[in-house]
Amino acid sequence: MTKAFIGDKEYFPGIGMIGFEGKGSDNPLAFKFYDPDKIVAGKTMRDHMRFAIAYWHSFCADGADPFGRPTMIFPWSDQDPMTAALKKADAAFEFFTKIGVDHYCFHDTDVSPEGDSVSEYEKNFHQVALALKERQDATGVKLLWNTANVFSNPRYMNGAATNPDFDVVSRVAVQVKNSLDVNVLLGGENYVFWGGREGYMDLWNTDMKIETENLARFLTMARDYGRKVGFTGPFLIEPKPMEPTKHQYDYDAATSIGFVRQHGLEKDFKINIESNHATLAGHTFAHDLQVCADNGMLGSIDANQGDYQNGWDTDEFPSNIYDAVEAMMVVLNSGGLTTGGLNFDAKLRRNSTDAEDLFLAHIGGMDTFALALTMADKIITDGKISGMKDARYDSFSSGNGLAFSQGKLSLEELYAIGKDIGEPAKISGKQEKIRNLVNQYLFS
Amino acid sequence: MTKAFIGDKEYFPGIGMIGFEGKGSDNPLAFKFYDPDKIVAGKTMRDHMRFAIAYWHSFCADGADPFGRPTMIFPWSDQDPMTAALKKADAAFEFFTKIGVDHYCFHDTDVSPEGDSVSEYEKNFHQVALALKERQDATGVKLLWNTANVFSNPRYMNGAATNPDFDVVSRVAVQVKNSLDVNVLLGGENYVFWGGREGYMDLWNTDMKIETENLARFLTMARDYGRKVGFTGPFLIEPKPMEPTKHQYDYDAATSIGFVRQHGLEKDFKINIESNHATLAGHTFAHDLQVCADNGMLGSIDANQGDYQNGWDTDEFPSNIYDAVEAMMVVLNSGGLTTGGLNFDAKLRRNSTDAEDLFLAHIGGMDTFALALTMADKIITDGKISGMKDARYDSFSSGNGLAFSQGKLSLEELYAIGKDIGEPAKISGKQEKIRNLVNQYLFS
Amino acid sequence: MTKAFIGDKEYFPGIGMIGFEGKGSDNPLAFKFYDPDKIVAGKTMRDHMRFAIAYWHSFCADGADPFGRPTMIFPWSDQDPMTAALKKADAAFEFFTKIGVDHYCFHDTDVSPEGDSVSEYEKNFHQVALALKERQDATGVKLLWNTANVFSNPRYMNGAATNPDFDVVSRVAVQVKNSLDVNVLLGGENYVFWGGREGYMDLWNTDMKIETENLARFLTMARDYGRKVGFTGPFLIEPKPMEPTKHQYDYDAATSIGFVRQHGLEKDFKINIESNHATLAGHTFAHDLQVCADNGMLGSIDANQGDYQNGWDTDEFPSNIYDAVEAMMVVLNSGGLTTGGLNFDAKLRRNSTDAEDLFLAHIGGMDTFALALTMADKIITDGKISGMKDARYDSFSSGNGLAFSQGKLSLEELYAIGKDIGEPAKISGKQEKIRNLVNQYLFS
Amino acid sequence: MTKAFIGDKEYFPGIGMIGFEGKGSDNPLAFKFYDPDKIVAGKTMRDHMRFAIAYWHSFCADGADPFGRPTMIFPWSDQDPMTAALKKADAAFEFFTKIGVDHYCFHDTDVSPEGDSVSEYEKNFHQVALALKERQDATGVKLLWNTANVFSNPRYMNGAATNPDFDVVSRVAVQVKNSLDVNVLLGGENYVFWGGREGYMDLWNTDMKIETENLARFLTMARDYGRKVGFTGPFLIEPKPMEPTKHQYDYDAATSIGFVRQHGLEKDFKINIESNHATLAGHTFAHDLQVCADNGMLGSIDANQGDYQNGWDTDEFPSNIYDAVEAMMVVLNSGGLTTGGLNFDAKLRRNSTDAEDLFLAHIGGMDTFALALTMADKIITDGKISGMKDARYDSFSSGNGLAFSQGKLSLEELYAIGKDIGEPAKISGKQEKIRNLVNQYLFS
Repeated sequence: MTKAFIGDKEYFPGIGMIGFEGKGSDNPLAFKFYDPDKIVAGKTMRDHMRFAIAYWHSFCADGADPFGRPTMIFPWSDQDPMTAALKKADAAFEFFTKIGVDHYCFHDTDVSPEGDSVSEYEKNFHQVALALKERQDATGVKLLWNTANVFSNPRYMNGAATNPDFDVVSRVAVQVKNSLDVNVLLGGENYVFWGGREGYMDLWNTDMKIETENLARFLTMARDYGRKVGFTGPFLIEPKPMEPTKHQYDYDAATSIGFVRQHGLEKDFKINIESNHATLAGHTFAHDLQVCADNGMLGSIDANQGDYQNGWDTDEFPSNIYDAVEAMMVVLNSGGLTTGGLNFDAKLRRNSTDAEDLFLAHIGGMDTFALALTMADKIITDGKISGMKDARYDSFSSGNGLAFSQGKLSLEELYAIGKDIGEPAKISGKQEKIRNLVNQYLFS
Repeated sequence: MTKAFIGDKEYFPGIGMIGFEGKGSDNPLAFKFYDPDKIVAGKTMRDHMRFAIAYWHSFCADGADPFGRPTMIFPWSDQDPMTAALKKADAAFEFFTKIGVDHYCFHDTDVSPEGDSVSEYEKNFHQVALALKERQDATGVKLLWNTANVFSNPRYMNGAATNPDFDVVSRVAVQVKNSLDVNVLLGGENYVFWGGREGYMDLWNTDMKIETENLARFLTMARDYGRKVGFTGPFLIEPKPMEPTKHQYDYDAATSIGFVRQHGLEKDFKINIESNHATLAGHTFAHDLQVCADNGMLGSIDANQGDYQNGWDTDEFPSNIYDAVEAMMVVLNSGGLTTGGLNFDAKLRRNSTDAEDLFLAHIGGMDTFALALTMADKIITDGKISGMKDARYDSFSSGNGLAFSQGKLSLEELYAIGKDIGEPAKISGKQEKIRNLVNQYLFS
Repeated sequence: MTKAFIGDKEYFPGIGMIGFEGKGSDNPLAFKFYDPDKIVAGKTMRDHMRFAIAYWHSFCADGADPFGRPTMIFPWSDQDPMTAALKKADAAFEFFTKIGVDHYCFHDTDVSPEGDSVSEYEKNFHQVALALKERQDATGVKLLWNTANVFSNPRYMNGAATNPDFDVVSRVAVQVKNSLDVNVLLGGENYVFWGGREGYMDLWNTDMKIETENLARFLTMARDYGRKVGFTGPFLIEPKPMEPTKHQYDYDAATSIGFVRQHGLEKDFKINIESNHATLAGHTFAHDLQVCADNGMLGSIDANQGDYQNGWDTDEFPSNIYDAVEAMMVVLNSGGLTTGGLNFDAKLRRNSTDAEDLFLAHIGGMDTFALALTMADKIITDGKISGMKDARYDSFSSGNGLAFSQGKLSLEELYAIGKDIGEPAKISGKQEKIRNLVNQYLFS
Repeated sequence: MTKAFIGDKEYFPGIGMIGFEGKGSDNPLAFKFYDPDKIVAGKTMRDHMRFAIAYWHSFCADGADPFGRPTMIFPWSDQDPMTAALKKADAAFEFFTKIGVDHYCFHDTDVSPEGDSVSEYEKNFHQVALALKERQDATGVKLLWNTANVFSNPRYMNGAATNPDFDVVSRVAVQVKNSLDVNVLLGGENYVFWGGREGYMDLWNTDMKIETENLARFLTMARDYGRKVGFTGPFLIEPKPMEPTKHQYDYDAATSIGFVRQHGLEKDFKINIESNHATLAGHTFAHDLQVCADNGMLGSIDANQGDYQNGWDTDEFPSNIYDAVEAMMVVLNSGGLTTGGLNFDAKLRRNSTDAEDLFLAHIGGMDTFALALTMADKIITDGKISGMKDARYDSFSSGNGLAFSQGKLSLEELYAIGKDIGEPAKISGKQEKIRNLVNQYLFS
């Protein structure tokens, strides 16, 4: 990507291509740490990261919140919804190319007006999809994933695939089928399900068993259709514990993986971890990533961050290097993002109303992960911490410990060993030592 | 149970058999709502409840907390640990019979001194087990479940079956084998695993994959041994999300069920839900019970309650009728507790230092669940709420909805239906109406 | 109130006056526990409760949430904003009279369109105020309180009276002056400040000292103006810890009372406690009420409830009797609501879209507090629990304890007493006994 | 401090004086960032920091937790309590001097055995105090503060100065008087009150008004006595929201400051902020520090950190540089710690059982704050961020904004201004830009 895509009109005038200037730069509109073509651990930063822009936040979120009206005015707005959609697509690709990101993600309703009927929806969506394809071809920007928004329309107020009313479930199929068709058209590398209202408001009026089984059935049907029309990438489930519902079925990584396995979907489904969702579920970002990695199910990442003291999804741009380093440790140690990427599912603060703020926010997020990649690579390459960690488990690599690992011992045999050994040694976990090392790596 | 067991000495003098006196009674040492032989929904209250006393809280917890020394002085304490253990057993059975509860639960180290060696541990434990058996036989009190305390001894500071050191894992086998042997001796109806330190303090020094696989291996070995020595009941996993560790592997019901299935243990393992653990994991008590019931894995219940605003396990005696009614709804609707029971895993407040407080606390807990049983039965029998709930799912019992339920539709077919139906009806969830009904049932 | 107010059109056709039918009634559209003219503790239920309807939730909230568009369609909507406002006023007074509530509350922008200029805002607001006055006169319904919405308009995105830009602060004065004028016109009994954006998003760009001092200055100016134009009731601050901001300055009761005192406003200001705000701040509803009562600052109550496991303001209708009983204990023990009331700052669930749901929700809320009043009165009259509580403090009513209470002892004197007495008695707090009594009162 | 204090025996053999080796050092037992005599912002690091060691954690905490017995064996333990106390004092001063910290803090019961009577308590405490004084004189180590432990002994199970039983209150005076006497003897620079059980377990049996007024009276008496015997430093209240009680009266900074002012103690009392207590109360560390600074009440700091996902006081050694930088920004901007210091109220993890772990933990904590000081100084000196912050408030420094700031405007005048200005400009808060800068400062 060497030049900006400009459609009929330049939507971010005065802001050019964002370049790498290094950590000494005084230019807010330049990368300090993200140097896309720099090689780290055998690959360019760009290829490690596979950054993606979230269409819904960057080009649709208008600053409204439950206590206030929109604060942001988009230069691509237009009275005619389809004109607005096409102008928005121009703005989006201008932004993708100026910020230098190779991937994007969207819901059907982010890119295209829903219209008043299914046929209008389909017509609009198809037309916009062709326009997106043109812009992809012109720029080389690729679709990391798309998904169907089956939570914003009032018809989904009681759920989508888990709705107690079959009619609504069938309407979900309309959006998902079209979204899969468009995915194939645009060469999407993954397809995502986020169950915004797949959960319950009140257990007193809910049959969880019916609802979750319907969900499994629906996902199975979607998988079958996707494979039939040529989608070969992974389907991704995105866990979130709550909000907007009181309880969402895809609570966290462990719950979602259990669900995928229970319903025999593990060959086709992986998990899309969002940092702020993991923390709302009571886990660290790294924890939920590691759970996925340990199960061979780390699909992709929604890179944002929450506020540990605010109990809702604040969707901030990632800036905490600790969290990002821990995340990149998991990514590097598990073989890297393959079809996945780092999608900035993050929104500007309501009061970040300058045009440049969208650039600044993404620069910050990209620099955060670039720093994190560099540091994680340094920690891994140096090997001191992983050496300490691995050494803790040495006893399982020989003798009785190995036999145990290989499932060759019965409880009686293990008992006999335990009876013999006397009191085991007391071995420090060295947590403080490791934390000191982490800071030394980060700040040296 | 018609008379109190009194050992060599009466440990609760001045307190006799606790009887039912009804809601108008002024006697604090009487049941107001728990009428053991009253028939509700075809069974006595006693048989529905299967109440159990938790040995560790009722006869071992001394009021100490992280900020203070013990406040409680036990009349059964003794300089000689074995003498103390036998006196404690007498006190326990005196309490069981006076309060009128048919079951009890214990960890190995609650009932018997650990000693300084494995052989001393085994000798002590076997001797106490025989004493417990005598008292069981004398009173008819039964063992609901027992378990091994593999978290209090400093040797387990890095975990038990998930310990990075194989030597420690083998020491776990010593306690678990003995505990299974004692279970069989005492006719235990379930066997429980609570993984107090099966988790991590810091992800930086932890290999979750090795640790959780070791845990699965260990449980498999224990299952095999239990079956071999004649234990026929369910093995129970007790989820808890955190505390004492930063993260515990058996986080919640969904996580534990996923783990059980992943490792092929679903025929032998069920779940023991503790209310305060469920709420620490971000779920309601009823939610985690329902998850188990929906998966055919509701084993038993640790009946206590937490403080929604204190982020640790406060283990209070249950007094919240709403939570108890919701719990009993799940229990009754899923066929009742079979081998399981309602175990009061609850402790006196640190400043509840009167001898009668232990009785008052259990009376409160038992009355709470007796009230809850009566109310849940009324709600179920009346059928109004379940009628409203079931009606929400009517569309899946005929026509296309039924075909969907039976897995007979492809996504294209579902899409075609959705395209045809136009805009689905907007159907109120009637949450407020149901909540009004719940209060009407509870307070009429 | 004996007949419904119907404006030009009936907005809730098919629903008549809601009457008391008692706890055996099968009619969802009747009170089971709220019997307005029944005498409890020397006053009618109606006079104890002083229920109020929240205009913003009941006639403006459309079911939209951060993840979805409106679900509710109001029959009083109209293309012309002023026509809509007047129709909404008709609908509101129809609802007030049908549900039988004597008070209401509003923000300026709930009742009247903001317009495109200050003069349009004022013209609209004045015209609607006269229409409200007419309806008040026609029905006898009174204004419990009003307030200015200085958080929804994008201009307040950085705060209102705490905005870093003086221009915005001056715009707040426009709304507050008009709101005070309208309050006087309508005979409002209180005037409320809820600081929706009086707080910060990020401490890095915020000067808390300037902002909170500006807030104090503004409140002082508003107080002076209110007094000048004839407002004689209390000004109320409504604490909330967070949301929409990261941190709100009026965090909780204790913080707000400290602020009021620090700035010498304690003669004119009291506190308006909202249940869901108190719980978000980590307190129980009763706790924050008691803090106010102990400081002589309990002004009024926003009666709703939150979800203990969802970290945002869910604003549910109150249904939890425990919380309501604890609240009414404080109210009765502190002399009752005087100028304050129980305002249902609660909204229908997004999927409660039937016209009757608004009635059902309020019936539930009113019945909850009616039950709670009855029970609190029973507990207080019976005196057993307060007797136990008071007895705990007996030692301060005579001898050295009294001297201490009266500030007559020096530390040396107290030391001398402590040195002499030896080990104090260990006195049980009897927490379990009291909890048992509470359930006995509630369920007998 | 140039050489280690060694008492009768060396308690940390093999570990010498901990020196600064710089960020490239491979020596775990050396400082990487803390260079005590380096000048930053006009003072040595040592003088900025005023680090202190917490006697209770470092020499008393044995690794026990609610689920497990002690894991740590202290070489200074002894069957005779007074011998143990004196050996512990030797160990403590050996540690202070080896780690190179100039201050320490203690509770009376940390340093000295309570004994079985007041006279024994006093005799022990006086004797140990003299031993501490000798060691202070020998080493130059100073007492930052001491306090009385009036929460661990069972007699305080219902509170200390807030106990419902006057006898217990008088026993508190015994400990506080002696602690003040010892403070004066040892030249303590502050005196602290942490109200471990000054709160309630259950509001149903509690009279908050009596209890908090008794607390105020007690603090007043203690203040008077302290001043009388020559203590000239600040008295410090240490807020904590909960744990061990359900609710503690000194909830957070704002609550404590309100309490201090309400009772006229503001000339003598300041606040001691503990990071983990602030976060348990729902605030950031920096927030509670800033609240104190804005009120001229920042006394001292308990430097530790909590786990945002575990709801109890984990008391970890500080390692998060973001939190520490934000803290040091407040400290530097408010004129630095004067009589206060950075006290490591932090404990080793239960499984950190190596002798060196105590050193490693403190090295990490000291390096964290050294890094933070350097970075905060860089940020302040560079001025870019504070420039952005200050510029937001420019409108209050001239014209009408200044008049407002000076309290010269009435609401009518402010209204007139607001009516005139039209729509205020929409000004971005630039939150993302500032966050980018923070990372650039930290990682450049």
